[in-house]
Amino acid sequence: MRVDLVIEGKAYLDGRLIEAAVAIDDGVIASISSPALAPSSDERVVMRQGQIMLPGMVDMHVHLRDFSQAYKEDWYTGTLAALRGGVTLVADMPNNDPFIDSLERLMEKLEIAARKALVDFALYCGAPRDLREMPEIRRIACGLKIYPEDYGKLLSMINHLEGDLVVVHPEDLETIMRERRLIAKPTIEDHGRIRPRIAEIRAVENMLRIAGSGRIRLHLTHLTTSDSIMMIASSKLRGATISCDATLHHALLSSDAMRRFGGIAKVNPPLRSREDADAVLNAIRLGLVDAIVSDHAPHLLEEKLRSSYDEVPPGFPGLEIYLPLIMTQIMDGVMPLKTLDLYSRRPAEILGARKGALEPGMDGDVVIVELGREHVIDPSRFASKAKYSPFEGWVVRAEVRMVFLRGVLALEDGEPRIGMGFGRYVARS
Amino acid sequence: MRVDLVIEGKAYLDGRLIEAAVAIDDGVIASISSPALAPSSDERVVMRQGQIMLPGMVDMHVHLRDFSQAYKEDWYTGTLAALRGGVTLVADMPNNDPFIDSLERLMEKLEIAARKALVDFALYCGAPRDLREMPEIRRIACGLKIYPEDYGKLLSMINHLEGDLVVVHPEDLETIMRERRLIAKPTIEDHGRIRPRIAEIRAVENMLRIAGSGRIRLHLTHLTTSDSIMMIASSKLRGATISCDATLHHALLSSDAMRRFGGIAKVNPPLRSREDADAVLNAIRLGLVDAIVSDHAPHLLEEKLRSSYDEVPPGFPGLEIYLPLIMTQIMDGVMPLKTLDLYSRRPAEILGARKGALEPGMDGDVVIVELGREHVIDPSRFASKAKYSPFEGWVVRAEVRMVFLRGVLALEDGEPRIGMGFGRYVARS
Repeated sequence: MRVDLVIEGKAYLDGRLIEAAVAIDDGVIASISSPALAPSSDERVVMRQGQIMLPGMVDMHVHLRDFSQAYKEDWYTGTLAALRGGVTLVADMPNNDPFIDSLERLMEKLEIAARKALVDFALYCGAPRDLREMPEIRRIACGLKIYPEDYGKLLSMINHLEGDLVVVHPEDLETIMRERRLIAKPTIEDHGRIRPRIAEIRAVENMLRIAGSGRIRLHLTHLTTSDSIMMIASSKLRGATISCDATLHHALLSSDAMRRFGGIAKVNPPLRSREDADAVLNAIRLGLVDAIVSDHAPHLLEEKLRSSYDEVPPGFPGLEIYLPLIMTQIMDGVMPLKTLDLYSRRPAEILGARKGALEPGMDGDVVIVELGREHVIDPSRFASKAKYSPFEGWVVRAEVRMVFLRGVLALEDGEPRIGMGFGRYVARS
Repeated sequence: MRVDLVIEGKAYLDGRLIEAAVAIDDGVIASISSPALAPSSDERVVMRQGQIMLPGMVDMHVHLRDFSQAYKEDWYTGTLAALRGGVTLVADMPNNDPFIDSLERLMEKLEIAARKALVDFALYCGAPRDLREMPEIRRIACGLKIYPEDYGKLLSMINHLEGDLVVVHPEDLETIMRERRLIAKPTIEDHGRIRPRIAEIRAVENMLRIAGSGRIRLHLTHLTTSDSIMMIASSKLRGATISCDATLHHALLSSDAMRRFGGIAKVNPPLRSREDADAVLNAIRLGLVDAIVSDHAPHLLEEKLRSSYDEVPPGFPGLEIYLPLIMTQIMDGVMPLKTLDLYSRRPAEILGARKGALEPGMDGDVVIVELGREHVIDPSRFASKAKYSPFEGWVVRAEVRMVFLRGVLALEDGEPRIGMGFGRYVARS
């Protein structure tokens, strides 16, 4: 057998780094073998000392904007950020302007994404306006995203769902509104008081009750407290089909970052105490969460620097720094090597995509990362239109050198080698 | 390089089954490679279709008796049971008669075990009578075992401990004694009432407080309730150095077995409700426990069939059926493949032994298991002197065909191929 491409070197296979040859044919991984047993190929990439080969990363929670918010990010800049971060599959949230809550809007978004994307993508739909569209929406969207405003809708639509992935932002709106009313003119540093940890805990409690119906695959996103993580683990112990994720900012940063970065560090849910962050970090280390997500949420710097608390939009970019941050945490011995699965294999499984692992039959998505040299995170060089980060100044020791997407060299040394629209919509398998 | 032995076939490596060649030289795994790249060897074992190769299993909680209880089990029959069950390392509990709570007793036991054992072994010491012996005890014992009677002693000795492994049987004695007094003439079916789940939960709560001292590596054994499992997970989330295990009988059997098997199914802690058993099973599936243990606890059948509740000793044998049961649960899709780690890699790590994984540098302990053919568990054929089991009649589809211990064929088709005393004491590494 002769294949299109063989990549040789130290590869991340099943939780270990092993010398291997990954053979890709027709965009799909054809074999994993020792280098000596690699099939002959049209092209051969031999990695250098200090480089490792990982599966393409999978980020199941991003906001690539576009539409009327293309000034914040569009599908080209957003997916270039993904590519630079070694991410070959993104699942994009529906809170666009206009909001994606119908088949028509979903198709519009699919058209824009398919035209511009550099990496493969899946799309969430918001709570559908017209539930009769659910069968068609289900064929296109990877799942539904439910915002705090839509908890009521979720309850009323539950009987229309059939094992659908439902990603929930767990923060109880009533609690938040009550807290907000208590402070006349909040500053950025009041953010944690206005959206307290109890708001998350209450929402998780409510959602776990719904999960019991068995009609949905509930996924709770960006958890920030030990309490909610433990409630979910406890539900799993009782047999519930449920998954959850955490961001690196909630694991590695605390509310201190709000003092240093002001509105730039405003995010929902807020950065919390050092103690909560340590619990999130431990949950990642122990595998008590099923995925790491960046919640890449770009805005203009001007928007983030507004003086009025309510006018600062929440979120910041993350796509291009998550893999370097995770690899550095691994090299520092903070996270075990298999934490990589939380940003690749596991979210791919949750999305039902044949990606996220170096295994025969998976898409030929390979990231070559160079380890060792220190880089300071410099947001001014981001591909994202949002050129700021609460991780600014952090030192990482891992750099994405090459990304192969379905066997095609898609990025080399920061520059895309494929054209707009090479990224493909990934159907639910 | 020429090695002593190469075993070729489907091997359990890092959570997957892969065609591989395991080369063993001088008793230690020298390489893992694809079969084509295997080094030349003096001996070559090629596995047949339907066979898989696993690391030697590790059971960190067994009672091999001997001394004045050699009529229940001795180190030869107990380790033959281990060998037949694919277990190449056992860690034996100190509740012998006489109780092992001094350096002298520990040395006596070491001498008996070294003379008779067919598999490698580690020994726990009970709470030492004389704490001044702790430095010597620490050099020999793999850890301390603390029984409910000795919780007070643990507290008073905590300052003499330095990161020692302390395995605790968590059941609150006060609760049990109070419950026992409430029932004048208990039957076997009162066992769960006399040792209620709250007794375990209270003991775990108390122990988690002690774990906070950081002076010990606390390990809580044979957990039976979702509450205690969740408390431990929560402690881990807060960064505690703590581990725990569960048995298969608490995961797969419920108190119903007491009705069917009477005193044979009496065990401490008791078999509980179906709901609790499901939680233990889920904890195993999710990896919320760190190890599976058999708590192999043989007694004479006559003892187990006594009519008076108090005179029926707790426990039953398990060593020769645990691996077949786990493999069958895996083939049935109930447990994920990596559950094997809980009976090999993880307990070996906890004990500090270079065993439990097919990896270069590990002891050359390999188990060849044949999958597919149905076997009914028939305790009358046990090597253990205790020829009964609450798993009697269960159908398993996995059979241990060969066991290699440090590269030497130790068992083939149920028959030992090594002599008494081949098993070695494993020092803490």
